[in-house]
Formats: sequence, structure tokens, C-alpha cells
Amino acid sequence: MHAQLEKILEELQTFLGKDQLSTNETVRENHGRDESYHEMALPDIVVFPRTTEEVSKIMQVANTYEIAVIPFGVGSSLEGHIIPVTHTLTIDFSQMNQILEVRPEDLLVRVQPGVTRMQLNKELKKHGLFFSVDPGADATLGGMAATNASGTTAVRYGVMRDQVRDLEVVLADGRVMHTGNLAAKSSSGYHLNGLFVGSEGTLGCFTELTLKVYGIPEFEMAARAVFPTVRQAIEAATMVLQAGVPIARIELVDEQSMEQANAYSGTSYLVKPTLFLEFHGNEAGLKQDVEFTTEIMNDNGCLEIFFETDNKARHELWEARHNLAYAYIHGYPGKKMMTTDVVVPIGVLADAIEFARQLIDETGMIGGVLGHVGDGNFHSLVMMDLNNPEDVARAKAYNARLVEFGLENGGTCTGEHGVGVGKMIYQSREHGESLNVMRAIKHTLDPKNILNPGKLIAEV
Amino acid sequence: MHAQLEKILEELQTFLGKDQLSTNETVRENHGRDESYHEMALPDIVVFPRTTEEVSKIMQVANTYEIAVIPFGVGSSLEGHIIPVTHTLTIDFSQMNQILEVRPEDLLVRVQPGVTRMQLNKELKKHGLFFSVDPGADATLGGMAATNASGTTAVRYGVMRDQVRDLEVVLADGRVMHTGNLAAKSSSGYHLNGLFVGSEGTLGCFTELTLKVYGIPEFEMAARAVFPTVRQAIEAATMVLQAGVPIARIELVDEQSMEQANAYSGTSYLVKPTLFLEFHGNEAGLKQDVEFTTEIMNDNGCLEIFFETDNKARHELWEARHNLAYAYIHGYPGKKMMTTDVVVPIGVLADAIEFARQLIDETGMIGGVLGHVGDGNFHSLVMMDLNNPEDVARAKAYNARLVEFGLENGGTCTGEHGVGVGKMIYQSREHGESLNVMRAIKHTLDPKNILNPGKLIAEV
Repeated sequence: MHAQLEKILEELQTFLGKDQLSTNETVRENHGRDESYHEMALPDIVVFPRTTEEVSKIMQVANTYEIAVIPFGVGSSLEGHIIPVTHTLTIDFSQMNQILEVRPEDLLVRVQPGVTRMQLNKELKKHGLFFSVDPGADATLGGMAATNASGTTAVRYGVMRDQVRDLEVVLADGRVMHTGNLAAKSSSGYHLNGLFVGSEGTLGCFTELTLKVYGIPEFEMAARAVFPTVRQAIEAATMVLQAGVPIARIELVDEQSMEQANAYSGTSYLVKPTLFLEFHGNEAGLKQDVEFTTEIMNDNGCLEIFFETDNKARHELWEARHNLAYAYIHGYPGKKMMTTDVVVPIGVLADAIEFARQLIDETGMIGGVLGHVGDGNFHSLVMMDLNNPEDVARAKAYNARLVEFGLENGGTCTGEHGVGVGKMIYQSREHGESLNVMRAIKHTLDPKNILNPGKLIAEV
Repeated sequence: MHAQLEKILEELQTFLGKDQLSTNETVRENHGRDESYHEMALPDIVVFPRTTEEVSKIMQVANTYEIAVIPFGVGSSLEGHIIPVTHTLTIDFSQMNQILEVRPEDLLVRVQPGVTRMQLNKELKKHGLFFSVDPGADATLGGMAATNASGTTAVRYGVMRDQVRDLEVVLADGRVMHTGNLAAKSSSGYHLNGLFVGSEGTLGCFTELTLKVYGIPEFEMAARAVFPTVRQAIEAATMVLQAGVPIARIELVDEQSMEQANAYSGTSYLVKPTLFLEFHGNEAGLKQDVEFTTEIMNDNGCLEIFFETDNKARHELWEARHNLAYAYIHGYPGKKMMTTDVVVPIGVLADAIEFARQLIDETGMIGGVLGHVGDGNFHSLVMMDLNNPEDVARAKAYNARLVEFGLENGGTCTGEHGVGVGKMIYQSREHGESLNVMRAIKHTLDPKNILNPGKLIAEV
């Protein structure tokens, strides 16, 4: 227990209600694990603020008593971002879940950090709008900004960082600031939006987000294109991108993962390497995009291409894709999943995915390979028994080899899941001298190292 | 003269050739002014490095003797970025102008900072590719990254910051680092790409850039839509954006500026508020986009719409638009131009532009209003006699009123020209608390304040 825990609680009680503060073990347990294989650890205190002012006061208390602070959304992290490594006060943002303003004319929305992606899209639909970033999980927007989340639509609409116009941030000492404004572009001052998005709670707590939204496309169509080999599927996808087809989603699912998808989602898709595609556009343009894409698929050995025009079948297709992680977890009870997240330049993606698949087969692990092909980002989902140290070591060694392949080819160790605790060991290799610049910035903004310590940057 | 100028020159001569180092007055004059109204001032020394290693050694010398350093491209700044405010060593990057690598498969290019936009596009054309950012001037890519330049195509392809995958940067003490990698997205570490793009030479010197490029669109078409009023033109444009038409350019030119354009470019366009449009896409989609846009234009009182299908007429149309600044300068010999650069949310753009136009008319200044309507970014081009203090004061007061309008509505004082010396006075009002965070970052990375001092951030 933190030596001054009683004093911290006493101070917090002066401005937080009874229902906004907890040291209950179950509550702490619910804030001590994420969706990953990383080992659970409990925070000492969990608080549930309702306003920016309360968050600012909480930070002032934390700063005075030098207790670590972790901002918490729904805990859908895959790299242990929200798991304490020392005495910790966790700030749960579930009470700050209001959609504050929809500005259809400006294509902007202003939300509190606890709003989830699906909650936002439900509201936006009334205005004919949608929020584009779709990481699969129904994460909070605060959490998605903290890890710079993306997912299947990034190839067309960009990642979380591309959608953030402004963040209200509470700094380590409780000061409140804004990183941006409502303008579509700016050359005024340093780009703090970019710096704070992806900072994983290590530079400040987000208390409000202004985000870019889009008009719902006039027409949408989904397709599955089946290939004899992973390489042919990727070559076809690469040609679609090079041809400048404004594809909205283009996802590779390998044979093993198609099998898991069928078992879990009750689909009966062909068990072959498959591209899941989605097109957005006006009717005529979409028709021509579809024709052109089909031609490219066929030129690259596509066995069959299935189009899903109605909403239900389209929804089912993406359900199956998004549920793949759960399909593996469900399929192997007792085992935990490790997800790799390397990105490579598109030109070497086929090599990277073949290498990933081959390594899984060679080592006898259970797992599949998925690819956000448009971004050169691919995931291996690898199952392991946490009670078997050899299993864990093998999975970690596997991730290390993929990361090394990625970095050798100019890529990155994580495209969308973030560093957390799982990818800290790769930071020095990946960033070299610039890691010192990152450390200097962290030290300047959080001199006492109370903001999510032990994540993203190892030592400060 | 800097007290230790002789020593500095001596040190530089140990690794720079005779033709790489100058204290000649004409050379210094060529590096003492930009394209703006800001008063000229000469650097003490100009150097012409050819390698990153030389830039690093130059920075080490500058750091030792605490002489200010200004990186210089072609001097096309509009806010005095490259004009010294103290004893200065200017680094001219014209000898570092190689296109190092084109990677068509990865849609990437690697260049030295002295490569200009047109030089790059000439090379890319051979590969069926193009670089999207088009600020009008044939600026260097290093300079464009330093100010986060954009221009007419930002509505579709984004600004300079969106194109930068990696920068090689020489820091204040001569250390060399990279801000990114070749991956299309990354959640690894802090987003240094975003921080360094737009830093105006105040955080480091760029010695190499890796940039995103695009396939040349299958079809392109340009149009001019003429309206009775500025408000109707903007309302039409706003509806096009809200409808999600993937328009490639959408520019407003007011009546006064159409007159200047005709006089300078020899065109005979109707002298009325006009939208200049460009469409990129596949043949069928573009056709439908054009039809839909025409419908929206007509619904908003468009008087006439002219399409330019052939390459020459299309080129002529954009020439006329891009030459507008020169048209004003040419039209009023002896006068200098001040350009405002406010961005507002699209919803208030019509109000902002009407306000800007009205203020010009009320004060009796000569000038026009142009708008990158898709971004909510508009420029007033205002002519003034630098020998007439009243004229200058009036223009400055005008800019201040537009900035105040912008900031009151959630906008920014500069969308693409940058802060330089001209917009420093607005930084505190615009950024509030976050300006302190910017200052802290600047101080951490440049403790001796030698990197382009007196720009972007006033006091450190």
C-alpha cells in the first residue's frame, strides 16, 4: 500500500462523492486487467470523475503525493496499457460519456472521453454521419486516441490521429490545455494533437475530444475474394492500391483463420486465403471500382469472388472478420492470445506474411495471420498456455522475430495496438536517437513520472 | 558582427569547401528576404552543405559558438521565417537537392530537403505518380515541411504533415535522428513526425524526407462556376463537401481578384465570385460527381458553369488561380502585399469571407479575398505602401481583426503559411496554456535557443 494512501483518500473525498471513489477489491480487479495475456495487477484506488475540473483536482492530489495515475476507458487494450506497475490511482472515465455537440455543417463532433465508438455512431446516424475508425472492439474514444487506434477502415479514412482536431488535456500538475482547434488545418505552433494522440496516458489525461466525422457514403458494397495462396491475395490487393482504387476496407484472412471464423460465426465461407473488401462511393463510381477490382483479382488467380450487396450479409461478413480474435480465444479454452502488430511497407507485405505463417507452422504453435493489407499492417494471433513457460517464451520469440523483420524493412513494431508494456523492449531498436528526444519530452511534461509510468518509455 | 565570427569561419573551413561558405554581401542579401512585406536583414554567414554529416558538423560549430542557425530553401516564405533577427549562420540547402529513391510499390519517395515540388513531380510523372501538396510557389520540400504547407489540393489529399512518413533531422547539438519510418501507420512511441513538421526550423534542420505519393488519377476535369454573390458560392461549396463528393480542389476567387487574374493572365473570365473546381477519379464516378456537383451549384444560384476537359485549358485555369498573388503585386508596383491566412470551421466560412470583404471595402484598401473553401482557409491579399506607416498599420489592424474573428469561432491564425515573425503576436491568444507546453518542448530540444530564434515562439 502507498505510504500515504489514507491521506490521498482523504483529499479525494473533499471533492468526490462516495460513489466516485473506490478501494473495493472487485472494482480494483476490474481495473487491473485488459484483453491481453499481460498479468493482472491492481490499482490502489479507482476514481470516477464527472468533470474536467474533478480530473484536474485528482491530478493535483496525485502530483502532490506522487502516486501513479492511469486513465481507463473500457480496458480493451491489448498491450497492458491500463495495468499498474506501481502504486496507482486509476481514473475511470465511464461517468464522462456524454456526446457534447454534433456539428453536421462542420463535419465535427465533440465528446467526452468515455463515449464508445458504437454509442457515437448510433447518435451520428441520425445526422447521416459516421465516425470512421473501427478497431473491432467497442472501445472508448479516449482510449482510442491514447493508443492511436485504427483498424479495417484506415486505408480509406486514416487512423485515429487523422480524426482528432482537438483534445482537452489535463497535465501532470493539473493544468488544463487544448491541443488544437476546430480548423481543418493549421500551421500555428507545434502540432500537439499529433504528439498527444498515441501518448498512452504518459503525457496527460484526455477530458474532451473534437473529432472529424464523415457523411455516410451513398453506396456501400462488400465482397470476399478467395485465392489459392496468401501471396496471390496480397499481390492482388497491392495492385488495387497502386491503381488508386479508393477502397474502403481490404483485409486478408488466412486459411487457418477462415476455419476459426466458420466455427465461431457459423458461416460456411471457403477455407482458403481470402480478401474481405468494402467499397464506398456514388453508384456509378462504385460500379466501375468493383469491375476494375474484380479484373485485378482475376488477373492474380482469384478462385472466386462473392459480392454482398444487402446490408445484412455485409454486416455478417464484417462480424465474422471482427470476431476473429474472439474466435481463437473461444476455440482454445484455457489459452491466452498474443497479437503481433507489425507494419511493413506494402512492397514487402507478402514476404512478411509468408514469413509469419511459416514460423507459426515450423514452431507448431496454434495461430493465424490477418492483414490490414492497405496499411501493410498484419496481425498474427497466437495462442499460448500462460502456465507453460516454454509456450510463452516461444510466442515472445516469435513476436521478436516478426518485429525484427519489420524493422529491417523500414517498418514499425506496432501499427495500432500501441507500445504499452508489451513492446517497450523494441523501442530502442526502432527509434534509436529519437527515443532520447521522446524521453526528454516525457521528462519535461511529467517530471515526477506519475503519468502511466512503466509504459511506452521504459526509463525516464 | 558576431564577436567570434572569425573563429566560426575558421572552424567551418576545416570541413567545407571554398564554394560552400560565403560572407559575400550579395549572397547574404539573397538570404535576407522572403516573398513577404517583412523587412530584410542579413545573415553573417551562408553555408551550402552537401551531406547530413556536414549539416551535423555545422550545427556543432553553431552550438559551440552560440550563433543562430536558419535553414533556407528558396525563400518563398510569406511570414519572414528565413529573415535573421540576430547574428545568424544560414544553411542553404540548394546543394542537397537529390531525389534519392522512388518506391512505386510502396507509394513513397525519399528526397533531400532542397528538392523542389516541380522537380519532384517531373521525376514522379515517369512512374505514373504525383506529389499532392501544391502551395503555388515552387518551394523546396524541406521548406514545405518546415511550415506545414498545403494549398489547393489539401481538401482531397491532406496537408504536408499528412504526407511525411519520416524526416532525418539534425538537432541543435548536431545529433542526427529520424522522426518516423516507411510504415503507413504507427502507434510506436511519440509522433515526432507531427511535432517536427511545422516547427519552422526551431527544433532542428531537416536533411532528408520520406514522403507519400499518389498514382496520377485516371481522369481529371476542371470547372469554373460563377455566382452572383460570395455567399452563394460558399454555400454551394459547403453542400458539395457535406454531400461527400471527393472533390480534388474547390477554390473561391472574389470579384476583385477575378479582375486581377484577367489583367495578369490574359484570361477573359467573367468578373463575378467564382468557384474553381477540380475532379479526380475513374471515368464513370467522375461523370456522376460532376453531374451531382452541377446540380448543387445550380440549386445555389450558379449563373454559369464552364468545364475544362482538355489539359491545356485546365492548366490555364489553375495558372490563373495560382498567379493571383503575383497578379496583385504586378498590378500595384511599389506596393507590398500582406496575406492573411485564417482558418474557420466551414459552417462560418461565408460569414468570415463576407466580413473580410466588407472590412477591405470600408477601409478603402486595395485587395481581394480567396478561399481554400474545402478547408475553411481563406486569404486576403492586401496591398500596402511600406513607406506609409498608416497604410502598414491599417493592414496589420485588418489582419488582427480577421484573426480575432477566426479565434472567436474556434479557428486558427494560420492555416498554411506558418507563424514566422508575422503571427507570433497571436500565439498566446490562440494557444493559451498549451503555448507553455510548446515553450517547454522548445527549451528542452534547443536549450541555447540557436534554432531560428525569434520565430514561432517569442520568448523561451
